[in-house]
Amino acid sequence: MTPSRTTSGGTPGPAGQPAWELLLPAVGAPARRRGRALQEALREAVRSGRLAAGTRLPSTRELAADLGVSRGLVTEAYEQLTAEGYLRGERGAGTWVGGAVRAPGGGGSGTGGTAGADGRGAGGPVAGPPGPDLRVDFRPGVPDLSLFPRSAWAAAQHSVLARLPHRALGYPDPRGLPELRGALAGMLVRRRGVVADPERLVVCSGVAQASTLLGFVLRARGLRTVGVEDPGSPEHGRLFASTGMETVWLPLDGEGLRPGPLAASGVRAVVVTPSHQFPSGIGWSAERRTALLDWARTVDGYVLEDDYDGDFRYDRAPVGALQGLDPERVVYAGSVSKSLAPGLRLGWALVPEALLDEVVERKRTMDLGNPVLDQAVLAEFVTRGGYDRQLRRCQRAYRERRDALLAALAEHLPGTGVSGIAAGLHVIARVPARFGPPERFLARAAEAGVALRSLEEYGTARPADGDVRLVIGYAHLSPSAVAEGIGLLAGAVGGPVGS
Amino acid sequence: MTPSRTTSGGTPGPAGQPAWELLLPAVGAPARRRGRALQEALREAVRSGRLAAGTRLPSTRELAADLGVSRGLVTEAYEQLTAEGYLRGERGAGTWVGGAVRAPGGGGSGTGGTAGADGRGAGGPVAGPPGPDLRVDFRPGVPDLSLFPRSAWAAAQHSVLARLPHRALGYPDPRGLPELRGALAGMLVRRRGVVADPERLVVCSGVAQASTLLGFVLRARGLRTVGVEDPGSPEHGRLFASTGMETVWLPLDGEGLRPGPLAASGVRAVVVTPSHQFPSGIGWSAERRTALLDWARTVDGYVLEDDYDGDFRYDRAPVGALQGLDPERVVYAGSVSKSLAPGLRLGWALVPEALLDEVVERKRTMDLGNPVLDQAVLAEFVTRGGYDRQLRRCQRAYRERRDALLAALAEHLPGTGVSGIAAGLHVIARVPARFGPPERFLARAAEAGVALRSLEEYGTARPADGDVRLVIGYAHLSPSAVAEGIGLLAGAVGGPVGS
Repeated sequence: MTPSRTTSGGTPGPAGQPAWELLLPAVGAPARRRGRALQEALREAVRSGRLAAGTRLPSTRELAADLGVSRGLVTEAYEQLTAEGYLRGERGAGTWVGGAVRAPGGGGSGTGGTAGADGRGAGGPVAGPPGPDLRVDFRPGVPDLSLFPRSAWAAAQHSVLARLPHRALGYPDPRGLPELRGALAGMLVRRRGVVADPERLVVCSGVAQASTLLGFVLRARGLRTVGVEDPGSPEHGRLFASTGMETVWLPLDGEGLRPGPLAASGVRAVVVTPSHQFPSGIGWSAERRTALLDWARTVDGYVLEDDYDGDFRYDRAPVGALQGLDPERVVYAGSVSKSLAPGLRLGWALVPEALLDEVVERKRTMDLGNPVLDQAVLAEFVTRGGYDRQLRRCQRAYRERRDALLAALAEHLPGTGVSGIAAGLHVIARVPARFGPPERFLARAAEAGVALRSLEEYGTARPADGDVRLVIGYAHLSPSAVAEGIGLLAGAVGGPVGS
Repeated sequence: MTPSRTTSGGTPGPAGQPAWELLLPAVGAPARRRGRALQEALREAVRSGRLAAGTRLPSTRELAADLGVSRGLVTEAYEQLTAEGYLRGERGAGTWVGGAVRAPGGGGSGTGGTAGADGRGAGGPVAGPPGPDLRVDFRPGVPDLSLFPRSAWAAAQHSVLARLPHRALGYPDPRGLPELRGALAGMLVRRRGVVADPERLVVCSGVAQASTLLGFVLRARGLRTVGVEDPGSPEHGRLFASTGMETVWLPLDGEGLRPGPLAASGVRAVVVTPSHQFPSGIGWSAERRTALLDWARTVDGYVLEDDYDGDFRYDRAPVGALQGLDPERVVYAGSVSKSLAPGLRLGWALVPEALLDEVVERKRTMDLGNPVLDQAVLAEFVTRGGYDRQLRRCQRAYRERRDALLAALAEHLPGTGVSGIAAGLHVIARVPARFGPPERFLARAAEAGVALRSLEEYGTARPADGDVRLVIGYAHLSPSAVAEGIGLLAGAVGGPVGS
């Protein structure tokens, strides 16, 4: 049962010692988290180069026996890391270490002239007056604000004001409070599989500011265009436009950005939402994740990963962030806007070394840094487990609402298809043509007091068929409000009227 | 005792009714605030055009008799408004309404192509490592952080979290929370004599952000240069540079910006600190305030008034802000950085109508708006009187420290002259040449662990004589630390060693 030793590129251990022993410490983890420990160890081994690209992995049966763990655990680890782009595999042919990964500090050409892209919360605020007769608002972008943990937050505020030294109330470090950068880095490594050196983490007011910061830096380096996903959030383009960069729409298919049009576009910066594409709801395939990073290295470009709702996955562990595969080419940005409240205006960016100084200087001239009390409160919240508890709470609530939405669609608008992965705060629903055409559908919905967005508002494509394609935000509505809203909608557009 | 009725431009009342009756309501105010009420009524009468430019005012004796108030009250009102530029007068010749004032919405040409200038807290953070052997730090820019009202702030935080509706936790209005804009507008009208329509008030992260916001707006309108005071804060130029604008140093004299070089410079935007010039410490004369506004109207330009420490005046009521004279030409910016703590990153800008939409859109793309909880806390703090109490507390503390500094200089470095008005958080001290030359003085101070800034660091001028000119920040030091520091300094440079 010796595992394969054809470690074509990895660093084998001393003679005769299986390279896979580097995974053994994971086995020592408590049973309930052994699977995750194995994934982390494997990810780290690939990332560090100890398992080099092209290395063939042992079969799941072999490795399970070698490590003394269940085969299911190994299979799950292989699948997870394949989805994230660390590994690649073909059914029956085996599993290899992928070529996508670059170690931090190792991959950048460092020759300047290039772009970190930008994006604000893809699922961010959508303008438009609700209207006086609004009864149910299905527009995406805002979480359930009643889930904000007021008493826990108040307790953290109180504790911060009691302990913070006076000097911390002075002009802040524009990069952010050290204790928050450390806490966030740890949390992001654990939850999102990123490479997060606190020295590379810049606290900012959210993905929107991360976008503007990066846009200015790229524009100063001479870039004039940025690619955005089509369909995607129009806000990405608006934010970049404010920095003097023009937007190029790049077509998506069911797996991610199409490599051909990307290469032909001439852009050297893109904004993407690979974990849960906004608005289409797909998760990018491992191949497309890899292809995007290959492209970035080829053109000396940058990728802004807008991880706007990466914490919310309902059917499996979230796919790790793209940034983990190449922290020198990917700017990773996220915020507490979906997990706590948009009104906190608190987020983070993990920035490639080559862009770091310029981003920090931009942050300094924009606002001198984020408010320190809020930063200290979030640090305490993350460190003491409040943030994880909050995410679990939201996860439960949003999963329940998503289920309620799917049930209501099946009942009231039969034949409606829901696409995308089971994740996030919105779904794409394709309502059959018999409820349309789209213009009439949306007009009737509005008359009935149901606010909706159609997918066409988020990109350049127009539907070839008569189906009505909707982007339905459900997270801010109770399960009963979701059901009621879909019933109301169906009544207005001529579906079976529900209870 | 009928007051003069040669109201050459004002709106006289109905036949026979003295125009000065418009001041009568002020007389109904309680005795302890009658003087202020009179000043406010007079200011408002000028601003509204009811007293037009060129109108001759009655003598103080006449008006006092007419209104039935003490003559001292009227004299004080005339002096205050003359200092602010609303009135002008010559000893023995009488007092007239000045020509500087423009009513809001009335004066702008509205034809675009122009600038709102920018500046960050002129007395803002100064970089530079304190060094391991720092014993006393006299560098200006930071208030006494131990004066931050922690328990009152904590109570306001608690109350805000208990009462704020859920929806307030969503994406904010980029202009700021309505309740805060209202509270700040009222406070600024009362304390700083500005014209403050809450609709024109933009909450921002401080004067630095106000500067960057305006710089981008001006640059987008085609401006390429901005004038800054010489001497002045180098930070103003750095902030504007980040928006693509070049800095032009404009020479000051003892009264303010010199009109000739200003007109010759070709700039159409300037950043100024008229209430307490940084760093020279002068208060601009009424003539220069008026001349600056005349210039702005002539060139269709804008003025950024950085009111970085306007709340702190120790010998008299603070001179009202320049903005009150022409809210369509002056962007007024301030923050809580000196009154509460720089770490809060909370400030405000009063923006001319012609620039407002562009400034708000810039604010939106920069960060979507300030954090809402902090805004709500400050609103509560201002509304319930906590902010006024805090200012009184700081005022007492800083006045005491300034007195301690002056006494210590007189004792330990005799012959040292202190220039500028009794205001703010720093003084300019001119140490006699016998303690110099300047290079040796500063080197010896550093060796002794005394951190100091020389005036030459803030502009282009070099002293013609051998005097050592220092910018000494005292607000963050206790009176005993101030005295000890100056003693230490004197010992190092060869002055009489103190107790």
